[in-house]
Amino acid sequence: MIIALAGGVGGARLAHGLARVLPPGELTVIVNTGDDFEHLGLHISPDPDTVLYTLAELADAERGWGLRGETFHAMEALGRLGGENWFALGDRDLATHIERTRRLAAGDTLSAITADFAARLGISQAILPMSDDAVRTIVHTDAGALPFQDYFVRRHCAPRLISLEFAGAETATPSPALRAAMARADLRGIIICPSNPFLSIGPILAIPGIRSWLAGRRVPCIAVSPLIGGKAVKGPAAKILAELQIETTPRAIALHYQGLIDGLMIDEADAADRFGECAVTATLMRDIADRERLAREALAYIERLRPAA
Amino acid sequence: MIIALAGGVGGARLAHGLARVLPPGELTVIVNTGDDFEHLGLHISPDPDTVLYTLAELADAERGWGLRGETFHAMEALGRLGGENWFALGDRDLATHIERTRRLAAGDTLSAITADFAARLGISQAILPMSDDAVRTIVHTDAGALPFQDYFVRRHCAPRLISLEFAGAETATPSPALRAAMARADLRGIIICPSNPFLSIGPILAIPGIRSWLAGRRVPCIAVSPLIGGKAVKGPAAKILAELQIETTPRAIALHYQGLIDGLMIDEADAADRFGECAVTATLMRDIADRERLAREALAYIERLRPAA
Repeated sequence: MIIALAGGVGGARLAHGLARVLPPGELTVIVNTGDDFEHLGLHISPDPDTVLYTLAELADAERGWGLRGETFHAMEALGRLGGENWFALGDRDLATHIERTRRLAAGDTLSAITADFAARLGISQAILPMSDDAVRTIVHTDAGALPFQDYFVRRHCAPRLISLEFAGAETATPSPALRAAMARADLRGIIICPSNPFLSIGPILAIPGIRSWLAGRRVPCIAVSPLIGGKAVKGPAAKILAELQIETTPRAIALHYQGLIDGLMIDEADAADRFGECAVTATLMRDIADRERLAREALAYIERLRPAA
Repeated sequence: MIIALAGGVGGARLAHGLARVLPPGELTVIVNTGDDFEHLGLHISPDPDTVLYTLAELADAERGWGLRGETFHAMEALGRLGGENWFALGDRDLATHIERTRRLAAGDTLSAITADFAARLGISQAILPMSDDAVRTIVHTDAGALPFQDYFVRRHCAPRLISLEFAGAETATPSPALRAAMARADLRGIIICPSNPFLSIGPILAIPGIRSWLAGRRVPCIAVSPLIGGKAVKGPAAKILAELQIETTPRAIALHYQGLIDGLMIDEADAADRFGECAVTATLMRDIADRERLAREALAYIERLRPAA
């Protein structure tokens, strides 16, 4: 049994590869909820939804978010009524937020709702929000403290970033389902997926109960670098890292995860910059075959790092 | 200036005719909110929306509710997630409910929100909910007391109807905007549109402040019968009236509005059953020309009923 930590697109893709190569029930994905926010009266969980949609093979591959074949009629109509439509919510996607919000208001936990959605979408692996407690990524910028989506989507990352805060993380705890997964005797390894280590994995690691579990692990933990040739695969991450004065090298990734990982998988394009225990491979996931291959290589790397007992 | 009372489809169509033949700003439509309900965490106002969409010329004429060219992708997706999708909300229509719910939660009144929506949709006439206080039509049936939409949509009117209750009407008051409209010195007449007198107009008349204003009116008030040949134009109304032991005749309509109207417009097919002060015409509104013609005839009838001063 494998536990994967994931944020949005890149992480979801490797999680999908793992879901396809591992037997049903042998994968638990811990997903970042720091990007969650309340918008239009709805509770929106961007990263859990990206993982749900990707593992259900319903995600739009081109756009990188939302559902394939999606329409945006509600957003157009909302604009006509003068409503806030800067955060594009597809029509089918809206149903996820409406139903999640209704169930949260009725007292269900985010974990229970996510598990039900996963089952309804035919996913046989566990998808667990990092916590049922609210953790919110706050971006401190030269334009003030901004909720993550406000900075990221509404303002297109234009303000200069000064620091990141994961509000609520200090007191957040893993859900009972997550604690049970972390304690499983048949856990063979942990994989930090190629999501942004600072923005997407950072909030997960800011939860004391998860960080200490990872620090005290008895199985190998590897991270898959999101960098290819010293660049983030997707857009604004490079600007964000530059403003945080974090270099985009395997070294920066390895130091960020120091004490938490036993090895780092990096792309061939970064082989010259390898730092510490590394495995080098092609990390770009263009199609499902790429996802499965990278998943198999990550699993094989874990086995190589396992101490001969 | 004319005030019209309206419920759903039939009422909205005559209101649309009136809006087209009267100068901008010379029509105020008081709309039933007894069918309003909370569903999926959203505040849904079926009759105000039907009036809004009809006057904006965005309504679907075939279906009789919702928007023309509408899609239902969110409902399909909601069904996939196990959500309640018995009340079909179109994707564009959802935006109306989401934005209304958000603004109500922010403290805006239903009147203010409806007025803003009307302006955004290019409507130059006033559309006013009958009250900003909650009035809810409860249907007492052999299956117990049911919220109106539960009885009407979810159960397809199957339970036998015993009585109607307009919960909250006794203490509901007209909004300031509605009081101002009712008090206007240039009011020339009042038209009760061909909505169901018991189900759709009943809740409006159950508000003491509106009923007493109508009873003490100084201008003519006419009602346009929703019957054609002793039948309701649209489906389940006939079953409902039969179970309430109300006959579907001009007489029953006239007695229901006794003391509140000065004349009743009935269809040619009901001419033999005329009762009291009546005007006979073709009341079926198949197209916009029909709506305009019936509106002109209703306005002319009001002028005929005006006491020579």
